[in-house]
Amino acid sequence: MDDPVLESDRDAIVKVNACAICGSDLHIYHGHSFSEDLGYCVGHEAVGEVVEVGRAVTRLKVGDKVMMPAAVGCGACASCLAGNVIHCATQSGSCYGLSSKLQGCQAEAVRVPAADANAWVIPEGISADQALMLTDAMATAWFGARSADIRSGTSVAVVGLGPIGLMAVESALVMGAAQVFAIDLVPERRRLAADLGAIAVGPDEAVDMVRELTHGRMADSIVEAVGIDATISLSLRLAARRATVSVIGVAQSRKFEFPISRAFGQGLTFRIGTCSVPEEWPALIPLVRAGRLRPERYISHRMPLADGARAYELFDARADGALKMVMTA
Amino acid sequence: MDDPVLESDRDAIVKVNACAICGSDLHIYHGHSFSEDLGYCVGHEAVGEVVEVGRAVTRLKVGDKVMMPAAVGCGACASCLAGNVIHCATQSGSCYGLSSKLQGCQAEAVRVPAADANAWVIPEGISADQALMLTDAMATAWFGARSADIRSGTSVAVVGLGPIGLMAVESALVMGAAQVFAIDLVPERRRLAADLGAIAVGPDEAVDMVRELTHGRMADSIVEAVGIDATISLSLRLAARRATVSVIGVAQSRKFEFPISRAFGQGLTFRIGTCSVPEEWPALIPLVRAGRLRPERYISHRMPLADGARAYELFDARADGALKMVMTA
Amino acid sequence: MDDPVLESDRDAIVKVNACAICGSDLHIYHGHSFSEDLGYCVGHEAVGEVVEVGRAVTRLKVGDKVMMPAAVGCGACASCLAGNVIHCATQSGSCYGLSSKLQGCQAEAVRVPAADANAWVIPEGISADQALMLTDAMATAWFGARSADIRSGTSVAVVGLGPIGLMAVESALVMGAAQVFAIDLVPERRRLAADLGAIAVGPDEAVDMVRELTHGRMADSIVEAVGIDATISLSLRLAARRATVSVIGVAQSRKFEFPISRAFGQGLTFRIGTCSVPEEWPALIPLVRAGRLRPERYISHRMPLADGARAYELFDARADGALKMVMTA
Amino acid sequence: MDDPVLESDRDAIVKVNACAICGSDLHIYHGHSFSEDLGYCVGHEAVGEVVEVGRAVTRLKVGDKVMMPAAVGCGACASCLAGNVIHCATQSGSCYGLSSKLQGCQAEAVRVPAADANAWVIPEGISADQALMLTDAMATAWFGARSADIRSGTSVAVVGLGPIGLMAVESALVMGAAQVFAIDLVPERRRLAADLGAIAVGPDEAVDMVRELTHGRMADSIVEAVGIDATISLSLRLAARRATVSVIGVAQSRKFEFPISRAFGQGLTFRIGTCSVPEEWPALIPLVRAGRLRPERYISHRMPLADGARAYELFDARADGALKMVMTA
Repeated sequence: MDDPVLESDRDAIVKVNACAICGSDLHIYHGHSFSEDLGYCVGHEAVGEVVEVGRAVTRLKVGDKVMMPAAVGCGACASCLAGNVIHCATQSGSCYGLSSKLQGCQAEAVRVPAADANAWVIPEGISADQALMLTDAMATAWFGARSADIRSGTSVAVVGLGPIGLMAVESALVMGAAQVFAIDLVPERRRLAADLGAIAVGPDEAVDMVRELTHGRMADSIVEAVGIDATISLSLRLAARRATVSVIGVAQSRKFEFPISRAFGQGLTFRIGTCSVPEEWPALIPLVRAGRLRPERYISHRMPLADGARAYELFDARADGALKMVMTA
Repeated sequence: MDDPVLESDRDAIVKVNACAICGSDLHIYHGHSFSEDLGYCVGHEAVGEVVEVGRAVTRLKVGDKVMMPAAVGCGACASCLAGNVIHCATQSGSCYGLSSKLQGCQAEAVRVPAADANAWVIPEGISADQALMLTDAMATAWFGARSADIRSGTSVAVVGLGPIGLMAVESALVMGAAQVFAIDLVPERRRLAADLGAIAVGPDEAVDMVRELTHGRMADSIVEAVGIDATISLSLRLAARRATVSVIGVAQSRKFEFPISRAFGQGLTFRIGTCSVPEEWPALIPLVRAGRLRPERYISHRMPLADGARAYELFDARADGALKMVMTA
Repeated sequence: MDDPVLESDRDAIVKVNACAICGSDLHIYHGHSFSEDLGYCVGHEAVGEVVEVGRAVTRLKVGDKVMMPAAVGCGACASCLAGNVIHCATQSGSCYGLSSKLQGCQAEAVRVPAADANAWVIPEGISADQALMLTDAMATAWFGARSADIRSGTSVAVVGLGPIGLMAVESALVMGAAQVFAIDLVPERRRLAADLGAIAVGPDEAVDMVRELTHGRMADSIVEAVGIDATISLSLRLAARRATVSVIGVAQSRKFEFPISRAFGQGLTFRIGTCSVPEEWPALIPLVRAGRLRPERYISHRMPLADGARAYELFDARADGALKMVMTA
Repeated sequence: MDDPVLESDRDAIVKVNACAICGSDLHIYHGHSFSEDLGYCVGHEAVGEVVEVGRAVTRLKVGDKVMMPAAVGCGACASCLAGNVIHCATQSGSCYGLSSKLQGCQAEAVRVPAADANAWVIPEGISADQALMLTDAMATAWFGARSADIRSGTSVAVVGLGPIGLMAVESALVMGAAQVFAIDLVPERRRLAADLGAIAVGPDEAVDMVRELTHGRMADSIVEAVGIDATISLSLRLAARRATVSVIGVAQSRKFEFPISRAFGQGLTFRIGTCSVPEEWPALIPLVRAGRLRPERYISHRMPLADGARAYELFDARADGALKMVMTA
């Protein structure tokens, strides 16, 4: 790839110190052989150092250590000003590494558009590893838990225990859940959830166990962190009356068969979407700083950017306990 | 039908002074020829006078003028104590006139179980007509608007302009909506909505008009008051980013094709269910008393109970401007 | 005064088309004879046209018609980014016309610091008069009503019926209040409130009338729009159990005798402060555009800026029906 | 004392198995020499066994193990039906042991009025000790934390570390506080708070330490659990901008000097009152059952009811590590 250059007075160039692989990168990986030229660089989770700023950039200067939220907005429309970056009026759904328009972060340097809105000095007391997790995965997990209307004293189920699901378990506990059911096919991941304090269970036993341990009430809040029809259906079956199901797995189904009649009887709330990363930070940064959330522990592997191909292979195979793969400069 | 009798110390017998026909009664009407013996009496919207109370009834006495919420609970389980009658642990989904277990109100008298929880003295300043509307339709409309997360200054769409839809329009305005789009096939009903201050439009033009008049943002809150797949789909297409769609139409679809992928991009909340009538009253009663909500104006016809068959015919045909049919003792 | 000049790349210069007098300007007026040189220009409610922008300004260009919120923030600290301009970390409590550091708007032109955050293009569908009212008074009234936790169906009292109090009455109705009690010594102002739909009453009769018309419950929400000890005390006496008293009158008492013991019995919430103007706009702008709030009708007088002295005299004397005095270029 | 008898069909008689002393009992203790005849029995925290029920009691039967909330309501007025027992329309502020009208629980048996509303079967999974703490102290602590608007990621201060203050510390952590400052004069109590995860500090150093460890922001939520002017003043000085101060200490001041002007600049919420005990239980019971809250550990002493005088002496002297004194049948 060519070195990135400023395209506007509001841009900055950031040298990438560390970047991570997200489960959603695998969609691209599977769509294209990795050796094949995509025409653009992937990756949307990164921390780095500012090396150049446009003249209209006011909140950053060269040398700042920054974290870049996966969700990219213009910083100027009504949606961005309200904190809802993901629904930016001008670049809706924009993210690094989805097209050649905005190159990805799995690179030596990256151009950050509207840099005052899209690169943030890493706050005091937050490590580079923590900052990297805050750029997407930890924020998405927290958003998912928050969108599930978790209240103190309730019963929560988390479906899917990748890094985001595991962090959703942690989030649910910080939000005051009395019980958290953690559901995944992989025993090793269930073990990690159990260590956090969750009641771990496989998908086939989940409905019965939740019913038994809630005395028939089922779960008040369900966080779905996979995004396929089967896990969304399971989530709906775990729902108590007046429950909320929150889907944060990247969901691509066009014709999911929704059990309207049953949901009507339950009084169900079904919420689906993804997060405007910095919107979650005012709550998250103090919790990470205080050690109440510890996203850095899900970093399972670290290797140079040059070994990216091997990182993708391990991650795709879920081999060697792969959770979060970090590539460093 | 035999005269109702007390079956428990907690029951009361109420002489029905007026009862109304609900759209959902038509499901039963269409399932069975009206002359055929259902084995039970239908109807779940009524006001009347207490004529007998069990010895464990403490909040009512003979002679009290009362209104009976359509949703019937035991008054003693955790759900009822929390106000959520519709999800009563012991009689979930119970309602008058759905089976011979709990006879309907389109009768001369009705047995009210757990009468302290299920019959309420009509408050001062509320007329019998208003009380009748509060037993189901007005409460459902308000609940639907509330479940659509209507906030001050937002754009709202109401799909379906029967009495409940029209009252949802009124509710949205009381909740501070800046714009209310009112959608129905029937011009006469659109005219009624326009008189309330709504922007009335037919279903075919709705998406385009909402897009134009919200400058592309679409509606923040949608109340669906029909319950069939086509209108639920339309409601989803009217949704702005981060919108809430609230379905209160009695929805019986088992396999609605939900556009998961699009909803994920929108950040959608989809809420569906029905109301625990008295839970809505602390807000509704003062608003009706103050004249800010006027549910009584949707009573289009009044006739003796003996003319019930004709009332059903008119109502089913939507003839003669039929909105709310009231039958009196 | 000298013509204002850019002091930073982020500043803009705005030619003032219209500015208004706020009740709080009278504090300054009374502290100093108007002919005396304050050393700075007062005024913090204005609309105008951008005539010069610094090179780091990205959201504005020369010729834009803008409205300037009374509350001025840096646009870059955590508080400003969260929308809480009034508590900006770097210029806390900053406002035009309080010192020579930031000259007032009752002038031919004004320097706007951090202009991307502090000057906003007047939205389509909003008149210049409406925009002027949105820069402070309407936003403060709405904030006051919002801070009083007004919910649908409740009883509200507004103490003090200057323009802000009258707009708080309107706001309470838009928020769904069932009853609004409007309290002031001046009969003419009570008449205006009654025209809006309020129950108008003098301060001496207020406690008794609220008690009678709420059947002893008293008011659920009270908006205090004066700021002196007597009216704060009256507000506390009007409070129902679990009520909220919201003080938005500029309150300068240091030793108000708070009836702690009585408040403990009531379960009281007492909230006091002022608003971060643009934070209120996402709700207000659509409501003003739709005509559900009509702040422009409180403009009682219009005169050239050169007649400012007369405007202050009339306003101070509450003569000639003076409500909102507007001075034009 | 004479044995209690049923005074109404809705009453029950409960044999007291265990009762506790509340800090507020000391007010009575100090007002009257203990040997002197008050004319009534004190105490409002008790668990026991139903020994007799009136014929209109439907939710209880003889032999039920029950817990009795300190707040007593009629169970039938609008306030009680909405869960707000403490503001019951007919017996407002009613509590056991404040007058001869409703004898206290520090006795062998007690009459429970409106027993369906005022005695609750101890839920499965809750021990008698836990139930006893839920009747008042744990509920008050939780209410206090809730009333302080504690949100995830915020900084909280608790002023006063008696049993209620210590449980407020625990509650704040369950609600997601990032930092909890725990303030008391007594080093032993600070040690207990530190063991819970709080930052413990004496009152004289509190303002400086909170300022330093919040980087100047101060505390977002403050729970005041003492009730005297000095600690209420300290609480106000600990408040960040837009903070909430929640006073749950039984506050009897009539003329507290409230710093109105400073509070106006801060944008303060000041909330004061006490709790409707069962209203807090839907959240608390699952949390206590799950071991996320452990109120039982604050029981420092247990002795027979006959040794009540010694229990009061120890408690009053705060001797021997006295926190919660329990007297058993």
